[in-house]
Amino acid sequence: MAREIIIIGSGAAGMTAASSARATDASARITVFTEDSDIAYSPCVIPWVLEGMSSWEDIVMHTPGFYREERDIDVRTGIRVEAVDGEGRTVTAGGETYRYDALVIAAGGRVFVPPIQGVGLEGVFQVRTINDGRRIEAALKDARKVVIAGAGVIGLELALAFTALGKEVTVVEMMDQVIPRIADRDMAAPVQAYLEEKGIRFVMNAPVQAILGEDRVTGVRAGGAEHACDMVVLATGVRANLDLVTQLGLDVGQLGGAVVAPTMQAYRRGRLVPDVFLAGDLVQSESAVMPGPTMSQLGSSAVKEGRVAGINAAGGKALSGPVASPWVSVIGDLQIAGTGLSQGLASWYGIETVSGKAAGSTRARYYPGGTPLTVKISADRVSRRIVGAQIIAGEDATGRINWLTAAVVEGVTADDFLVRAENAYCPPASMVQDVAIKAAEDLCRRLNQ
Amino acid sequence: MAREIIIIGSGAAGMTAASSARATDASARITVFTEDSDIAYSPCVIPWVLEGMSSWEDIVMHTPGFYREERDIDVRTGIRVEAVDGEGRTVTAGGETYRYDALVIAAGGRVFVPPIQGVGLEGVFQVRTINDGRRIEAALKDARKVVIAGAGVIGLELALAFTALGKEVTVVEMMDQVIPRIADRDMAAPVQAYLEEKGIRFVMNAPVQAILGEDRVTGVRAGGAEHACDMVVLATGVRANLDLVTQLGLDVGQLGGAVVAPTMQAYRRGRLVPDVFLAGDLVQSESAVMPGPTMSQLGSSAVKEGRVAGINAAGGKALSGPVASPWVSVIGDLQIAGTGLSQGLASWYGIETVSGKAAGSTRARYYPGGTPLTVKISADRVSRRIVGAQIIAGEDATGRINWLTAAVVEGVTADDFLVRAENAYCPPASMVQDVAIKAAEDLCRRLNQ
Repeated sequence: MAREIIIIGSGAAGMTAASSARATDASARITVFTEDSDIAYSPCVIPWVLEGMSSWEDIVMHTPGFYREERDIDVRTGIRVEAVDGEGRTVTAGGETYRYDALVIAAGGRVFVPPIQGVGLEGVFQVRTINDGRRIEAALKDARKVVIAGAGVIGLELALAFTALGKEVTVVEMMDQVIPRIADRDMAAPVQAYLEEKGIRFVMNAPVQAILGEDRVTGVRAGGAEHACDMVVLATGVRANLDLVTQLGLDVGQLGGAVVAPTMQAYRRGRLVPDVFLAGDLVQSESAVMPGPTMSQLGSSAVKEGRVAGINAAGGKALSGPVASPWVSVIGDLQIAGTGLSQGLASWYGIETVSGKAAGSTRARYYPGGTPLTVKISADRVSRRIVGAQIIAGEDATGRINWLTAAVVEGVTADDFLVRAENAYCPPASMVQDVAIKAAEDLCRRLNQ
Repeated sequence: MAREIIIIGSGAAGMTAASSARATDASARITVFTEDSDIAYSPCVIPWVLEGMSSWEDIVMHTPGFYREERDIDVRTGIRVEAVDGEGRTVTAGGETYRYDALVIAAGGRVFVPPIQGVGLEGVFQVRTINDGRRIEAALKDARKVVIAGAGVIGLELALAFTALGKEVTVVEMMDQVIPRIADRDMAAPVQAYLEEKGIRFVMNAPVQAILGEDRVTGVRAGGAEHACDMVVLATGVRANLDLVTQLGLDVGQLGGAVVAPTMQAYRRGRLVPDVFLAGDLVQSESAVMPGPTMSQLGSSAVKEGRVAGINAAGGKALSGPVASPWVSVIGDLQIAGTGLSQGLASWYGIETVSGKAAGSTRARYYPGGTPLTVKISADRVSRRIVGAQIIAGEDATGRINWLTAAVVEGVTADDFLVRAENAYCPPASMVQDVAIKAAEDLCRRLNQ
């Protein structure tokens, strides 16, 4: 009898799981349930669609029709899974009950809504789905002043998109720097300065205390001051959606994500649950930098996890590894990228870091079109292992941060990186000695001080 | 008494050695001898200067005056070292004799001139120094048809530069593909097709047999046919310049490069020579891919080697590591890059490879400005270790090839790469799953077949 695979969630994790399951087992019955009306798109692109660089139609990679015809995957949109029975191996959705042999829960995350007054007012938005994006797009037409709560990468990308559309934008952030969790202060500062030059106003050290208005929003109170606006976007981070995980009694870890094995199988009271797989924003991953978990919550991680979950759910064999969780954000002409631990996170985990830094260009100094490039690399003072890196550049930040991610994941020390790292060179595409290697040289010098 | 450090050669290796020696020992006397009249420039940029993207003046990073004033380094240009006495620790140059405590030989390479008739005719050029470049620039004014001997990256970059200047360009190559030693046939083919579209003629399987003409060149005979031209450029590869190495009786390895320790110290009859250091195009390096040597002969390698040689010559401590020798070439709108072994080289070394390949884009599919991206990764069929990779893209090839170089150098298997490699994602800067990871997926599939 054909294996019944049920997947809950239609984001990067869920749809990759579905396709990977199909590639592993040609005869399985694969059904995807999703509350969303759109599938297989990247929420990360919403700021650019709003800015007009792409369209809601174009960002949808595949439709349910494609999945049905090309991959024999049954995608049910706009349907909520009401109940999951782990004993009986059934899922109840839309009033009907479906049996499964393997279940993949990739229900994603939810925008963290601060527990304050006014979050339900008209004119307050989240940024998670295409429907959220369409609502923002409609509301922007009549808005002049927008407050964005949260100076993480999504908040900053949105701020720039709204500014490009001629809006007056204020970003309120409870910490004292932009991209506070994952970027170091000295790397975040030029990004904030760049955005301020574009006319964006920042209110720092200012947790949002209330959203003001009668029926619809008229302002935000943050850090003790009031900021008038027609519209508020909550870019306040994402929490794991644990509804079904909790219903099944699966284990949740100390960071608030579900615990998984390297196979992406779930645990219940410390025992592996062989037929339930988890992937995407709702899981905790093992950190590549230190013993213990981390929350990746990145689209790229969701794809990797979905692949492993889908292959294993279909009876194949795949493993996930420890993660450094590299990220990149494009803020106008700037690309900022990072991997591993920021100095702040490292110190929170009790790791004393030493950092090296270098500046140069993405091309040979004399070749036209090169952009400034700054690379910072941090190592554990004791083990001398590289625990994190960050980059600001005008181009080619992604490849470079993936490169430094390999150093973090493979446990390379600063000394060994300096000995072993090599860079390709051609004047229109790099400096003869890449800035990352110069940063490692600076790092080794400081480690030896 | 101050340490006397003499450095022979003023390219990337020599000048990096000089600066690194100074950073290590503030009081040493450091003297650089060079036959060249210009110093501290990258020969790799010559095609672009000829095309008009930069100038001979701009590509010189620092002048002898800068080195004297800022780094207290005495650079003697236009002077030939006539003799080196390893017993007496002296160098004779320009009729005078200088004592050294440490000697760094970074005398570089020489263009391989095929042993054929006519190489001495007027109108036959090499591409190695700024003076070579200036001579080519002058001759181009009156030239209509140019033959380039050799379809390596320098030959191709020159061919495109000459075409941009309105010349009729023919490239003759003795092998049956462009970039024959370091690129695989399937990755080289689109580059050749691109150049053919630009009007460049290729004559393949055609070793240059003679250069024709009385006083000045009138044509080239290659592969049995004659190709009329006003000008010939030999882009026929570089051989180590071993004049001084031989004079000192230092060991030369099976690939025709001088043998060095990880400290960049020379050997004589298998014994370390503690006071002679070698760096740059004249040395053999240890391969990161297989036991045994390789010839890197890259500007980026020269910088790394020069740094180690300079630090150690000044009494510091630094080591060089095994190399994968990543390279990148920009051919108009294309960037082609590689690392480790090509399939051809691997098979020459007795390594049976399996390759995976994937195509996609440098940005999210729907984001404007992305360019096609193809990544190929090859592994040893037995050990499953990644032994090489190649990339064709319109942007961001350098960071990606450095990333894959880390996998080669750290000895990562294809399976582990798939488990452990992560990529940063932002729609304007990458796909959610980087093409390199897709290529690794394809590779693992093929390894398991």
